[in-house]
Amino acid sequence: MKIVMAHGSGGDMTRRLIEEIFSKAYGNEYLSQLEDSTVLPCETKIAYTTDSFVVTPPVFPGGDIGRLAICGTVNDLAARGAVPKYVSCGFILEEGLDAELLKKAAESMALAAKEAGVLIAAGDTKVVEGKGGLYINTSGIGFVYERDVKAKNIRSGDAVIVSGTVGDHHAAILGARLGMQSVSSDVAPLNGMVEALFEAGLNVHAMRDVTRGGLATVLCELAEASEKHIEIDEEKIPVSAAVKSFAGLMGLEPVYMGNEGKMVIILPAKEAERAVGVLRMCKYAENAAVIGHVYEPEKEEKPELTVKTALGGTRVLDVLAGEGLPRIC
Amino acid sequence: MKIVMAHGSGGDMTRRLIEEIFSKAYGNEYLSQLEDSTVLPCETKIAYTTDSFVVTPPVFPGGDIGRLAICGTVNDLAARGAVPKYVSCGFILEEGLDAELLKKAAESMALAAKEAGVLIAAGDTKVVEGKGGLYINTSGIGFVYERDVKAKNIRSGDAVIVSGTVGDHHAAILGARLGMQSVSSDVAPLNGMVEALFEAGLNVHAMRDVTRGGLATVLCELAEASEKHIEIDEEKIPVSAAVKSFAGLMGLEPVYMGNEGKMVIILPAKEAERAVGVLRMCKYAENAAVIGHVYEPEKEEKPELTVKTALGGTRVLDVLAGEGLPRIC
Repeated sequence: MKIVMAHGSGGDMTRRLIEEIFSKAYGNEYLSQLEDSTVLPCETKIAYTTDSFVVTPPVFPGGDIGRLAICGTVNDLAARGAVPKYVSCGFILEEGLDAELLKKAAESMALAAKEAGVLIAAGDTKVVEGKGGLYINTSGIGFVYERDVKAKNIRSGDAVIVSGTVGDHHAAILGARLGMQSVSSDVAPLNGMVEALFEAGLNVHAMRDVTRGGLATVLCELAEASEKHIEIDEEKIPVSAAVKSFAGLMGLEPVYMGNEGKMVIILPAKEAERAVGVLRMCKYAENAAVIGHVYEPEKEEKPELTVKTALGGTRVLDVLAGEGLPRIC
Repeated sequence: MKIVMAHGSGGDMTRRLIEEIFSKAYGNEYLSQLEDSTVLPCETKIAYTTDSFVVTPPVFPGGDIGRLAICGTVNDLAARGAVPKYVSCGFILEEGLDAELLKKAAESMALAAKEAGVLIAAGDTKVVEGKGGLYINTSGIGFVYERDVKAKNIRSGDAVIVSGTVGDHHAAILGARLGMQSVSSDVAPLNGMVEALFEAGLNVHAMRDVTRGGLATVLCELAEASEKHIEIDEEKIPVSAAVKSFAGLMGLEPVYMGNEGKMVIILPAKEAERAVGVLRMCKYAENAAVIGHVYEPEKEEKPELTVKTALGGTRVLDVLAGEGLPRIC
């Protein structure tokens, strides 16, 4: 078997690669939590995550690889209900890289870290042959306190909320590659809105940040991990006019388009409207909306994600198949 | 300015790159500890570090990139006196990579993690275009307990110990590239020997694992950080016969050759012989030796590293200049 681009898509081939190679080699009770970040015992529990960023182009409308590298890791910690504290960064630089670009990326990291309230606490740099490319790995540590946020907590009757419009980052990257710079990326740290939810006393069951593979892939993973059905309503999913027309032009479905500043939040239905009210007061969540609900599968049914279409039909959505947009993050 | 291979050497150009770009962009009190890993406040203190591995060839006599990726991070934690606990791994795979090689690397990681007693607790995979190469970032968390191990603790009169022969990893990599597979890498986890030192009640002041840039570069950094002179005795530095002849053939100085399984330990001179005794009972430290001592600079002298040569002279050693051996780790 040879590695192909689709192994990095975040969809089914990525999952298979992980199951067949990494889980087999060193699966353990922590890795098998299968959440965006891993909760680890400590005197106080800490959340710990890692992510590499290989986005191209490295600078795009609305952000750059540096902002992405901080926000991606911060959001993985926030999705566990953790308060992000420390980030490490490992740079792999291809020979010929313009130092100005590197400097700009480092400065973006600093700004994003300041905004998110995290410290860049460890670093490393390597240089390899190549064509001037830039890769950044970040890992992150967050403090967990008494919060218990995970897919297994999802219950029938829960509501599904998304914190804003979907598809923006995907459209920004693809647009930039095609020379159509009309859509800005949504790349942003989401720990502020997560804190607001907890401060309001809301009983958040599970969260995921919506990245590679898009909203549908994330919700499929949540359905599977919780062994529940999830149904979403196509008309309720926030999509900006710019992304809608871009997606139409490109033949893309917004629910499979990647984001870098959107959170899916699952909590009891009776708290949903209040949660949306809290979110809409937050930066980066002005367009938060309830988009669906969780319900119990019939005996021996496999948990699945369905969407009610605008025309009144219902169809099943699966995780993203194939390679998606390569190097989107 | 363009990035060149020397920026990844671990020597002076790497340092300048860090100072001029990363420290400027997001320097903070934690990053400025300038130790192999960063000690962070928490309910119990944790040590946190990151390292990317880009070694070529990815499989070499005595090890491979997977073993290296675990041991490098474990050793950075151990060098702070921390007990390594958790490791994250971020893979960047170039399209065309043979999955067998990836599998072998993952298995090596698992074995090394088991040997070192750490859990691989978070992971990520990306795929990029390229020529089938493999990059691995690991970050690590260790528990610090009551130990305070850092360069600033170094005192005049301290002894300098190295845990074994130097230059083995460098000779293994360069030999493999040249088709002369005579020397095995020393890649190994060193946390076992560090625990043995603490269990024996030894008052370790500072440690560093000896990697890129070699013994001389590490000792220069310790001299500078502690504002002390360090003098080592060339004849006391352990070098295997195979590395000695390889270095002679290649015109290399063993003190500038990279290692991946050697620790420098600095503690009070009166404890030095006992420490060497403890080390020699440990796996990977059979050839431990006292190689030098620390003394006070005259007023306004800059701290420096000197070596007494076999011929009785003394010369000053600086950090590795230029690029060293690219992609040694």
